[in-house]
Amino acid sequence: MTSPDQHTLAHHFIITAADCNSQREISIAHLVTLIIETATEHANSIGVGFDRLISHGMSWVLSRLSIELDAVPSINRRYKLVTWVESINRLYSERNFEIVDVESGSRVGYARTIWMAIDMESRRPADLSALHILERYITDRPCPIAKQGKLLPVTAPTSEATYMFVTSDIDINRHVTTRRYIELIIDRWELGFWDANRVKRFDIAFRHEARYGEVATITAAPHGESAGVYDAAIQCGGNVTTLARITFVPRA
Amino acid sequence: MTSPDQHTLAHHFIITAADCNSQREISIAHLVTLIIETATEHANSIGVGFDRLISHGMSWVLSRLSIELDAVPSINRRYKLVTWVESINRLYSERNFEIVDVESGSRVGYARTIWMAIDMESRRPADLSALHILERYITDRPCPIAKQGKLLPVTAPTSEATYMFVTSDIDINRHVTTRRYIELIIDRWELGFWDANRVKRFDIAFRHEARYGEVATITAAPHGESAGVYDAAIQCGGNVTTLARITFVPRA
Repeated sequence: MTSPDQHTLAHHFIITAADCNSQREISIAHLVTLIIETATEHANSIGVGFDRLISHGMSWVLSRLSIELDAVPSINRRYKLVTWVESINRLYSERNFEIVDVESGSRVGYARTIWMAIDMESRRPADLSALHILERYITDRPCPIAKQGKLLPVTAPTSEATYMFVTSDIDINRHVTTRRYIELIIDRWELGFWDANRVKRFDIAFRHEARYGEVATITAAPHGESAGVYDAAIQCGGNVTTLARITFVPRA
Repeated sequence: MTSPDQHTLAHHFIITAADCNSQREISIAHLVTLIIETATEHANSIGVGFDRLISHGMSWVLSRLSIELDAVPSINRRYKLVTWVESINRLYSERNFEIVDVESGSRVGYARTIWMAIDMESRRPADLSALHILERYITDRPCPIAKQGKLLPVTAPTSEATYMFVTSDIDINRHVTTRRYIELIIDRWELGFWDANRVKRFDIAFRHEARYGEVATITAAPHGESAGVYDAAIQCGGNVTTLARITFVPRA
């Protein structure tokens, strides 16, 4: 539902069993899917969706995403994601989200995303100046979570796995799905760890697109001395595909 | 939406990018998820949902599923799944589905499912007699696809892989997700094969529940002399977890 001035859009959803992790909460991969779908709906509704970009030979690419959760949305409850645009410049646009528990009316979390456009032919970053119409929709609605810090490659992994991308990992653009990148990171922690801890904050940066048949190395390690904070990375050949940082808190 | 006599329920959906395989069609795993969600909605609406079964110490378990498609639902289009109950006896209930392309009004496929109940404590099949209320909702609406034939273990695999179940494969009941079983089967065929062929019919039988950390062997082989028909199986230790049969047709 778009607001009358079209500055925000609210996407309502109920969390089904298939959307959940083994702790009966929305999986991070599914939450990110909903964030992307909500962004896409709003962009379409204000005339800056994928269709419009294709007419300029460009496509939107999700570059960075950060989520912070006071409570993890849980099974059979109703939520809404509210989205708005914080900024746009030649290189990128910032789009934020609020996650609301519809039954209690309370905000359970926020997300920040950064979108770039790429030139479909060169696969290089494209100039967003053609989308100056987007400036009309910028709002100063607050998003009270920190912007994403610099994510770093994992230098001394305490956990490591390899994985070859297969048929069901490939999306409509012939790249690896966002879901698969996120699951590969989530899977660096054992089921028992997830039973004892939940995500407080999840940061991810998409650096390079992986393809069918490529072999990924997934690594993770504690982030300095901060308790409960970990860095993770996915590398394919010499390329850093994805960097992430997860902050866990013990469950009550 | 339930019909006035509650004999059918229609679940509407639009296929987003995240629901698709690399051929811009609904993935089989996502179609099965929607089938399960539609079944759950109808069962809840007529008072035989999971909540009711729990009060009898039982839970619904999807035992077998068959899908036949004249066309595979594709990206950005609107569809509906219509469900109804064909039969119930002490051991199982048959529930069928029709997949309708809402824009053209044409039926693009059908599905048949067989549900059993298990006793939550013994994990053994439970007696469905307590759910005789379900008999009221049986209809003779036709489902013009064949019932599932006997699926057989793969004796001489032409394709084989192993996989260990990880955190993101585990569902709210601490078993492996239906999605993961289906993807493991789908992944026995390379991306190029899927570009050249589509699923005409998909049969799957869920035999035994797999758990976190178990190692699965996934095998596939042509089914006798029938062109385009393959058997597939997932085994964990000595147990057959899942059996499947896929009938492919070349894309136009």
